Amino acid sequence: MKRFMNDPKTVVTDYLEGLSAAHPHLVKFDREARILVRARRPERPKVALIAGGGSGCEPLHTGFVGPGMLDAVCPGAIFTSPVPRQIIAATRAVDCGAGLIHIVKNFTGEVMNFGMAQEIMAFDDITVETVLINDDVSIKDDDDSAGRRGLGATVLVEKIAGAAAEAGADLATVAGIARRVAARSRTFGVGLTSCTPPERGQPIYRMADNEMDLGIGISGSPGRDRVPLSSACDIAAILLDEVLSDRPPAPASPLLVLLSGLGGTPDAELYLLYGEIDRALRARGLKPARCLVGNFVTSLEQMGASLTLLELDDELLSLWDAPVHTAAMRWGMCP
Amino acid sequence: MKRFMNDPKTVVTDYLEGLSAAHPHLVKFDREARILVRARRPERPKVALIAGGGSGCEPLHTGFVGPGMLDAVCPGAIFTSPVPRQIIAATRAVDCGAGLIHIVKNFTGEVMNFGMAQEIMAFDDITVETVLINDDVSIKDDDDSAGRRGLGATVLVEKIAGAAAEAGADLATVAGIARRVAARSRTFGVGLTSCTPPERGQPIYRMADNEMDLGIGISGSPGRDRVPLSSACDIAAILLDEVLSDRPPAPASPLLVLLSGLGGTPDAELYLLYGEIDRALRARGLKPARCLVGNFVTSLEQMGASLTLLELDDELLSLWDAPVHTAAMRWGMCP
Repeated sequence: MKRFMNDPKTVVTDYLEGLSAAHPHLVKFDREARILVRARRPERPKVALIAGGGSGCEPLHTGFVGPGMLDAVCPGAIFTSPVPRQIIAATRAVDCGAGLIHIVKNFTGEVMNFGMAQEIMAFDDITVETVLINDDVSIKDDDDSAGRRGLGATVLVEKIAGAAAEAGADLATVAGIARRVAARSRTFGVGLTSCTPPERGQPIYRMADNEMDLGIGISGSPGRDRVPLSSACDIAAILLDEVLSDRPPAPASPLLVLLSGLGGTPDAELYLLYGEIDRALRARGLKPARCLVGNFVTSLEQMGASLTLLELDDELLSLWDAPVHTAAMRWGMCP
Repeated sequence: MKRFMNDPKTVVTDYLEGLSAAHPHLVKFDREARILVRARRPERPKVALIAGGGSGCEPLHTGFVGPGMLDAVCPGAIFTSPVPRQIIAATRAVDCGAGLIHIVKNFTGEVMNFGMAQEIMAFDDITVETVLINDDVSIKDDDDSAGRRGLGATVLVEKIAGAAAEAGADLATVAGIARRVAARSRTFGVGLTSCTPPERGQPIYRMADNEMDLGIGISGSPGRDRVPLSSACDIAAILLDEVLSDRPPAPASPLLVLLSGLGGTPDAELYLLYGEIDRALRARGLKPARCLVGNFVTSLEQMGASLTLLELDDELLSLWDAPVHTAAMRWGMCP
């Protein structure tokens, strides 16, 4: 394992110190509470958005704190859910009376810990809505599993609901928009390598040079199927088949295409794969109206990518285009 | 080698197709001429900025085409300079009578091919200024070498001179600003792994798990010194010593700190390293006024980072903050 680090035990706090040093006007790291909050309180009360999850998936979520997106984030240890204490601290830190939304990815620990935090805060005078993200189509959503994991849709919910909150929408409206984005998003991922959690020091598993993992998530666990590595063109078709067969969008709808690298795949390769996806979508009569290509939901230095499709409507499109200023997503605002 | 690709021979054109499909309002890929140009001509004649270089270093330069930055780019084969034919095509494509600047990194082939292109165009009615970038302090700038390589300063020159050109400055002014940025920038890089060019299919060299390369460039070649891997804190000190001893900035000057990943290092690790650099700069009485952390000048999927310091002044700072809208660098403009 080769990394820029001082001590495997402190990588999370150390990188959060660096992130807040790099963006002091955007975020503040509260080392004691182990939460990241906006550096500036909003000028008027607004619905506050909070997310959290295992670290190692950056920029999710810590790169998305700032105007137009999240208000606070609770980063867990590497690939480990945040604890209730963090969630409570974040909730109390950013509450300004207009209500809060907990954006929760459907992982057992994350769901449980956000739930526990809410129980503990039951007598606080804070109204919290929970929005569950479960866009991963690689898992059958039946009684035998913990259900579909929350993957790329998380970024889209955070951006679009964040824009609605910033514009002054009330809690029910923002929660409704967030749920609409989650319901209309689907994700499927492909992994080319494993990754190495710092404290473990060894790759979580091994893959042969001619293999790839289909249906990969973000926990560093292997995918659903291990199959022979194929061409970018074939991989694009596989990703699209999985996502589109689960929820076919209306032919005329504008689509938002998120192609996120898993951390170790260079941007040029992601663009190459995006080119194949774009071509295949058009060949199927579909219309990629917006796209986002780069590292957004990752697993440390894992190579691979995940495809998220969101069927937009006029309101969602306009909220997507609204200004945002965070460490990892930024448009429409001056420095 | 595990990559998203169809054919090792077509990775460059394939990724450029994807990049232009993802950003049709920003860039247009001319497959025949093998150049990338802005999708929209500027509204008024302006000084045009052109850069080029070996592919595999993305987002340099192709991710930096658009308002506030470059006008056209000539991408060579992987780690190979563009040929004169591309440079001529790009120059003629974006000339609008206000003069052009060729931003040339100091690599033998790149300098030679830009020079040949200019000779061939000697009878064209186009005024071209060349700005040479040679910020790499790992190489002694003496008669025995081809001189210092152009590394991270390239991004800073492209952004800052691009802002001046966009604001309507004339050719001599833009060239002067570009040269001032180049002269005030210094870079030193550290590599943790090698990388694998697609057509080669094997890593260029091998490194042990406990080694790192100091003084790495972007050609995929090994660094100046192979030394034991050390902590992020120690690496930050090494990078700063190399850069600051070569050109100590005035204590009160605002510094621009570019910490670029080499492609395969996750952002969180870069932020961790940035935290150490920020702390060490302040401990030396220096002032990081702006920073940019992420993948900007890379070598495929190589792990590692390079540190570039630019001593700003008021004019350069204001040009840095000016709006920009490219695939890889974007602020201050709406979609």
